[in-house]
Amino acid sequence: MLIVMEHNADPEQIEKVKKAVSALGLRAEPIPGSERTAIGVLGNRGWVDDATIRGLPGIREILHVSKPYKLVSRDFHPRTTVVRVKGIAIGGGERPVILAGPCAIESEGQVLAAAHAVKKAGAQILRGGAFKPRTGPHTFQGMGLEGLKILRRAGDEVGMPVITEVMRIEQLDQVCQYADILQVGARNMQNFDLLKEVGKLRHPVMLKRGMCASIEEFLAAAEYILAEGNSDLMLCERGIRTFEQATRNTLDLSVVPIIQELSHLPILVDPSHATGRRALVPVMSKAALVAGAHGLIIEVHPAPESALCDGAQSLTPEGFSSLMGEISQLYEYLGFPG
Amino acid sequence: MLIVMEHNADPEQIEKVKKAVSALGLRAEPIPGSERTAIGVLGNRGWVDDATIRGLPGIREILHVSKPYKLVSRDFHPRTTVVRVKGIAIGGGERPVILAGPCAIESEGQVLAAAHAVKKAGAQILRGGAFKPRTGPHTFQGMGLEGLKILRRAGDEVGMPVITEVMRIEQLDQVCQYADILQVGARNMQNFDLLKEVGKLRHPVMLKRGMCASIEEFLAAAEYILAEGNSDLMLCERGIRTFEQATRNTLDLSVVPIIQELSHLPILVDPSHATGRRALVPVMSKAALVAGAHGLIIEVHPAPESALCDGAQSLTPEGFSSLMGEISQLYEYLGFPG
Amino acid sequence: MLIVMEHNADPEQIEKVKKAVSALGLRAEPIPGSERTAIGVLGNRGWVDDATIRGLPGIREILHVSKPYKLVSRDFHPRTTVVRVKGIAIGGGERPVILAGPCAIESEGQVLAAAHAVKKAGAQILRGGAFKPRTGPHTFQGMGLEGLKILRRAGDEVGMPVITEVMRIEQLDQVCQYADILQVGARNMQNFDLLKEVGKLRHPVMLKRGMCASIEEFLAAAEYILAEGNSDLMLCERGIRTFEQATRNTLDLSVVPIIQELSHLPILVDPSHATGRRALVPVMSKAALVAGAHGLIIEVHPAPESALCDGAQSLTPEGFSSLMGEISQLYEYLGFPG
Amino acid sequence: MLIVMEHNADPEQIEKVKKAVSALGLRAEPIPGSERTAIGVLGNRGWVDDATIRGLPGIREILHVSKPYKLVSRDFHPRTTVVRVKGIAIGGGERPVILAGPCAIESEGQVLAAAHAVKKAGAQILRGGAFKPRTGPHTFQGMGLEGLKILRRAGDEVGMPVITEVMRIEQLDQVCQYADILQVGARNMQNFDLLKEVGKLRHPVMLKRGMCASIEEFLAAAEYILAEGNSDLMLCERGIRTFEQATRNTLDLSVVPIIQELSHLPILVDPSHATGRRALVPVMSKAALVAGAHGLIIEVHPAPESALCDGAQSLTPEGFSSLMGEISQLYEYLGFPG
Repeated sequence: MLIVMEHNADPEQIEKVKKAVSALGLRAEPIPGSERTAIGVLGNRGWVDDATIRGLPGIREILHVSKPYKLVSRDFHPRTTVVRVKGIAIGGGERPVILAGPCAIESEGQVLAAAHAVKKAGAQILRGGAFKPRTGPHTFQGMGLEGLKILRRAGDEVGMPVITEVMRIEQLDQVCQYADILQVGARNMQNFDLLKEVGKLRHPVMLKRGMCASIEEFLAAAEYILAEGNSDLMLCERGIRTFEQATRNTLDLSVVPIIQELSHLPILVDPSHATGRRALVPVMSKAALVAGAHGLIIEVHPAPESALCDGAQSLTPEGFSSLMGEISQLYEYLGFPG
Repeated sequence: MLIVMEHNADPEQIEKVKKAVSALGLRAEPIPGSERTAIGVLGNRGWVDDATIRGLPGIREILHVSKPYKLVSRDFHPRTTVVRVKGIAIGGGERPVILAGPCAIESEGQVLAAAHAVKKAGAQILRGGAFKPRTGPHTFQGMGLEGLKILRRAGDEVGMPVITEVMRIEQLDQVCQYADILQVGARNMQNFDLLKEVGKLRHPVMLKRGMCASIEEFLAAAEYILAEGNSDLMLCERGIRTFEQATRNTLDLSVVPIIQELSHLPILVDPSHATGRRALVPVMSKAALVAGAHGLIIEVHPAPESALCDGAQSLTPEGFSSLMGEISQLYEYLGFPG
Repeated sequence: MLIVMEHNADPEQIEKVKKAVSALGLRAEPIPGSERTAIGVLGNRGWVDDATIRGLPGIREILHVSKPYKLVSRDFHPRTTVVRVKGIAIGGGERPVILAGPCAIESEGQVLAAAHAVKKAGAQILRGGAFKPRTGPHTFQGMGLEGLKILRRAGDEVGMPVITEVMRIEQLDQVCQYADILQVGARNMQNFDLLKEVGKLRHPVMLKRGMCASIEEFLAAAEYILAEGNSDLMLCERGIRTFEQATRNTLDLSVVPIIQELSHLPILVDPSHATGRRALVPVMSKAALVAGAHGLIIEVHPAPESALCDGAQSLTPEGFSSLMGEISQLYEYLGFPG
Repeated sequence: MLIVMEHNADPEQIEKVKKAVSALGLRAEPIPGSERTAIGVLGNRGWVDDATIRGLPGIREILHVSKPYKLVSRDFHPRTTVVRVKGIAIGGGERPVILAGPCAIESEGQVLAAAHAVKKAGAQILRGGAFKPRTGPHTFQGMGLEGLKILRRAGDEVGMPVITEVMRIEQLDQVCQYADILQVGARNMQNFDLLKEVGKLRHPVMLKRGMCASIEEFLAAAEYILAEGNSDLMLCERGIRTFEQATRNTLDLSVVPIIQELSHLPILVDPSHATGRRALVPVMSKAALVAGAHGLIIEVHPAPESALCDGAQSLTPEGFSSLMGEISQLYEYLGFPG
């Protein structure tokens, strides 16, 4: 940590800062400069909570060298985590995993049709939402428990593990009963109580990046889950919010190599939410795999034109099947077994 | 709603869109143009869920004229809502209300000192956080129930209603027991399950704008609360996330007159979180009141230099007292009784 | 400057960084930590160009303590600059200055009508654009030289100095001949060659903040002008680009006190471009003055409904006159002579 | 164009809007709704300048269906443009083109070393900056004319066309004399006078996207160049500015397929400026090619650790050679001749 003092900070202010640093059991090393003094803080092991320092007079800014996470960091855990779900390995040097299915569960027929289609095309995990976070209350909010049961039956019928979003703590038991992977959505990335409870489970989890979460905040949110003991965690980039309105969100693909550098956790990509437009999903799916994504989560609907949710970004079964053919070829280039 | 077709959309695609509109009980009115056809949608009362249309082929974009909220809209409720808390009126043409106190409750002594100071300086409502949303798990997370009790006792001792943040549904009963106003924080603005449960209460609520929530999303989140029957709701702008790093967030003051135009709900401003820097709080407080804010929520700590949370943005009791003097003069200019 | 090394940087890499620092005539002071080593750089006077260091292996990040500007900084020039234009003082503790007039010069009649109206209402400087930066080429691009002449005549007739935008170096002579203040617009804030040429003049200049320029970049752009010797410079905040679409831009009012802390240059506000909506201009004008703006630049058009440019954000003469009445009252509160 | 009236707009206001539409030679078609009236505007061929309408009372918003560009649009020019530079074809179904070289020209030796290295590795065009746009005036601003000559000689020696940035109109003749492609940089994307002059030339141009330019604004800027008659234009995505600070900019790869859908112009990607970090350049280069980029412009420096500009994002000759090997394999997957 480096504490940069104001140009005109007086010796008394500098002294106070040094004392506050000492009070935290750390060492303060003033670095006098021609324009202003800076105070290096030494002796910390990991992130320093600067709360008792930040408010002192005469400080211009505090620069953190350590990060607000440790368990998720590759620095202390160099080997890449592989999350295993019913024999499917996600992360590390394994072949990327494809999760696919409808945005929202609407009926048994719809999910079954989707499940058979994505299975046949080569997807490994079935997705489907029973609880839907919607911007306004006057739109379809999901089928709830009934939807969970439908998803489970569909997964069992085609022999695929299933993933679904959980939105509230009281749903956790129920969702764990029916789903193989819990998804914590972008809007709940900083719902810290949900993260803590999810951390207490021993159940695989996918955490999506918040719409305006920095990579540092994303990893700090993941740290909440690991800190409670659950290390079966995978991350998912799903686009960030920027000024650009041509896509639903802006897919930030650089996040894939950066997360791999900073963390040992698997990082997947959701090209459907990131772009919001069906025509962009195949091309961005392939770009994400080349960027090193450990998997993709893709929306597929048997009849997107009548989907109750996000039809515009859902692939048709034909579109998905065609994409899987291209991905298969891409795996050859990337050196994975087809 | 206006559906804009692609340049090369064929008559069959246009026909399909018209049928999908009819299926929603609405009327489709094609508007042929020289470049492309657009289809006006008539007959809707309020927001149309375009899910079953958005996925159809040949559509370039869908422009919504109606908004995804209705109960919060001034269009259908022209009179400004006044939220009343123990005799204090918030909203409408009333004198703005000042909420003040520490970011986090740390001890009985700290809260009592803050309470006496802000009461003496003229604040009407006492704030203090017992449950704290923190970026990472390795920092102070709040005192919980013990903190709630301290806050209540402090409020009672100085005769002020109290406001505190609620982060999870299971806390609602407890928090309602101790606090006069529930705060839903920025990170939970789209925690829709929490919003729904808060909507079922008959307890005043302050909803803070999410860090990257558009005004439309902010009002749609408020709609969740009103839709469940709780109309004792006030909104609060607390800065949005932008590229600018000189302040913690970017205070978007235009939101104050815009919310007043679009909605009947009171809109307050939190200059402490918006700027993140003590030196900016007084000047932005006054700017917010001139912009029409119905109130301010300001962090005050008896000893900011040793605060466990957000000391850098907390005013000292002296600083707050001085600001209240300036606000008092400003009220004269604004035509409110001192 | 603090150079933060990677967790696994080896001694050889650290040695190379130290040598590169020495090569710049500076002193390198390693600060070993438990997680990683950081290297403090001492002895610099002002901004260090880190180009020859940044590319070295083993560096995680470089944190700058000094800023890329010096002449505009208050650190080295504590007294606030006052720009004087034909007897009108802008900046410092002076009463704020109001610049008003049409967005674009369209005809002699239009400018004269606007000039008389804003003069009568109390504005001190007349604005009007002869060269207009427009998003696309198929819209009105300004009247050019003919417009400059009209503006000059109108200014002379009502006895007001005039300000107009300059877009290219070849226009400088001409514009200096007709205008009392040159405006460099937001789109040209980093047109560094234009800044350099403007810096060689001895003519007052208003530099507008770029749409996505940080405060640091804004001041560094201003530094270009001062570095060439022109210190008659005022800055202008005109809204930044964010995800929010409810206003044309997002007015960042915190910039006003921040610029006053960091720099000695006057800082004005353009509420017309910042909001893009007439109804928001009066309230944000007053908020800007309370935030400490040294002046406002406001669009006024005699007939906004037929304006060739930005009619939606232009006040009518009646609206402007009414706003000036409110501003006059506000000056009393702010302690300026009416 | 659709004009959405306020909820409480009166018939007189609606009438005025209809008249203003007629005055533009267009037809107004009111679409009454239950909440508010909208007015469809028919008969336009392309973009309508709404200046004379936007300011009318009673209007809530104006939704444009047409775009502010036409010549760059694929709607009216379905065949993809191929720009040819000394026998090298850029755009269309051709094999992507690699432009490489140092950020700034520093010396003859440096450019020659870079030129030989990138030529040997397989690059087709040599890049190098003689005029450098730098945030502040106290850093290296480029070698100017001397740099241009060095670049030309180096290009001639290795037999490669050269590209360099132009920053001001007066440089155009000189730069055309020495460079085969002119680059208009991100900071000048809306320097409309420069665009117009570049449009009058018959010289290939690369236009980079502005840091906060929407795709619509990017294409409208390109329209300025085509409107003046120069259609040898290629576009380049180089990252946009967002809240994320982990990379220099945020690479927006979705722009590649979107530009290809909307426009016939070639679209390239600059992974060096987009990420700002050497380690990310190879992976994002490959992702960009898979996304469909018509080429890449990559910074390569013989000794990045002593580069005067952007060393942290420059590849070494070895790094570039290794990347070119991977690209060569990728071409096989993509179906291009190696």
